[in-house]
Amino acid sequence: MTAATVYVVGVGPGDPELMTLKAARVISTAPVIAYFCRHDKMGHARKIADSHIKPGTKELRFAYPFTTERLVNDPSYHPDMSSFYDECAKQIAVEIEAGRSVALLCEGDPFLYGSAMYVFDRLESVGPCEVIPGITGMSGCWTQAALPMTHGDDVLCVLPATMPEDDLAQWLKQADAAVVMKLGRNLPKLRTALERAGRLQDAVYVERGTQEEARVLPLNDMNGAAPYFSLALLPGRRGVR
Amino acid sequence: MTAATVYVVGVGPGDPELMTLKAARVISTAPVIAYFCRHDKMGHARKIADSHIKPGTKELRFAYPFTTERLVNDPSYHPDMSSFYDECAKQIAVEIEAGRSVALLCEGDPFLYGSAMYVFDRLESVGPCEVIPGITGMSGCWTQAALPMTHGDDVLCVLPATMPEDDLAQWLKQADAAVVMKLGRNLPKLRTALERAGRLQDAVYVERGTQEEARVLPLNDMNGAAPYFSLALLPGRRGVR
Ligand SMILES: C[S@@+](CC[C@H](N)C(=O)[O-])C[C@H]1O[C@@H](n2cnc3c(N)ncnc32)[C@H](O)[C@@H]1O
Ligand SMILES: C[S@@+](CC[C@H](N)C(=O)[O-])C[C@H]1O[C@@H](n2cnc3c(N)ncnc32)[C@H](O)[C@@H]1O
Repeated sequence: MTAATVYVVGVGPGDPELMTLKAARVISTAPVIAYFCRHDKMGHARKIADSHIKPGTKELRFAYPFTTERLVNDPSYHPDMSSFYDECAKQIAVEIEAGRSVALLCEGDPFLYGSAMYVFDRLESVGPCEVIPGITGMSGCWTQAALPMTHGDDVLCVLPATMPEDDLAQWLKQADAAVVMKLGRNLPKLRTALERAGRLQDAVYVERGTQEEARVLPLNDMNGAAPYFSLALLPGRRGVR
Repeated sequence: MTAATVYVVGVGPGDPELMTLKAARVISTAPVIAYFCRHDKMGHARKIADSHIKPGTKELRFAYPFTTERLVNDPSYHPDMSSFYDECAKQIAVEIEAGRSVALLCEGDPFLYGSAMYVFDRLESVGPCEVIPGITGMSGCWTQAALPMTHGDDVLCVLPATMPEDDLAQWLKQADAAVVMKLGRNLPKLRTALERAGRLQDAVYVERGTQEEARVLPLNDMNGAAPYFSLALLPGRRGVR
């Protein structure tokens, strides 16, 4: 018998078939699964993993302590999130102490801007922990958009649209290829930054990549608000053709 | 009956269990598989996919037109590679015209510095093409190294170690988090660049991530030549803890 283990499991960008064989195995055998969600919702990672969860599996729902999107620079954000992650880690520890392995589900890859990282940081003393990589949202989006991203010596920059416009424009000017994540309300800012960098014409907008309602269009044609699951792609184009 | 299709299939970083369910399905049902290899070798992607390839599947071996690692700035490199990729695309086209779907296997994710991109660029007129994302080498490596990479507003730069030392040092200074790919003979240059950027102490070296002979160590402790499958990780560390 192996010791009770925490598996931090990447479930990929949305299409359930884009889970790995390993993720599917761990999810279908773990006695306990855990996942983040909003109070009123099922949780996106939970939904992706659905067909692999056996009846009788115990579920730990980690509902974020806010209902509307709160800004990271709101002074109450950090302490609230910090005690939320403490509490998640504590609930996982209880299961491990009782000898039950836990699979903590995470959208995309757990270690690329994943909430699960903050819980992972708090599990060091709890017991063995294994992280299972997932297809990232960006890989899901650039394959769906049929956009080869990096050739030869290209530098790829992954940028959160949450940064100040000046910084964003600067990075977009320097990068060969770029992915801009976390669009949401930052889309107008990104559009201006792309324009300043002279790269608006090359940017592709992808919404809900690999999911049923996926959309791919030139970013320049995108009007209105961007949903949570959306990103922008700037392909590099260097080297042999 | 669906039209014969080219599937460009990411098979992940090495552990066969890190293939997606979709890749496994496509590989086990395609009448033809194709893959890159050296003249004398089986091909790494072919090896990863091995257990899913049904007996009787036709195999197209694309052996690179060089035996030793040749430099990208060697003047004969580009034309040779270009006609090699033309020939690969031609062989795939023959199968599609005969009504047989082809799965072109690719290590990691096909659109992140993958050779398959050059073939993909040549297939536009051949018929329908679908790209299946794969777990990238970098995701395989940072999860294996238990290294959360990007938090909050962190910028992640993916850098090929083939670029000049000055550029490398500059990028390493600016990036919050970084992945340096294609180490090989470039390892001593990378070490100097990391030192110049003041970040040598934080760099982690990963060799053959998720494969049987995987090694993870502080880059500073790494002496000697780096193999083809190796990269360096610089984790970012921002935001909530
Ligand atoms: C908190 S980050 C988590 C990223 C995730 N761990 C990954 O590996 O992709 C959330 C952001 O990822 C991007 N994203 C993730 N999946 C996506 C998808 N299927 N389509 C479009 N964007 C996606 C969006 O920009 C979103 O705001
Ligand atoms: C031509 S690029 C192909 C990258 C691939 N398409 C991907 O998505 O990872 C080859 C480089 O990827 C990195 N790499 C890929 N798989 C790796 C692994 N399992 N361990 C370490 N490095 C890896 C190495 O730096 C190698 O030189």
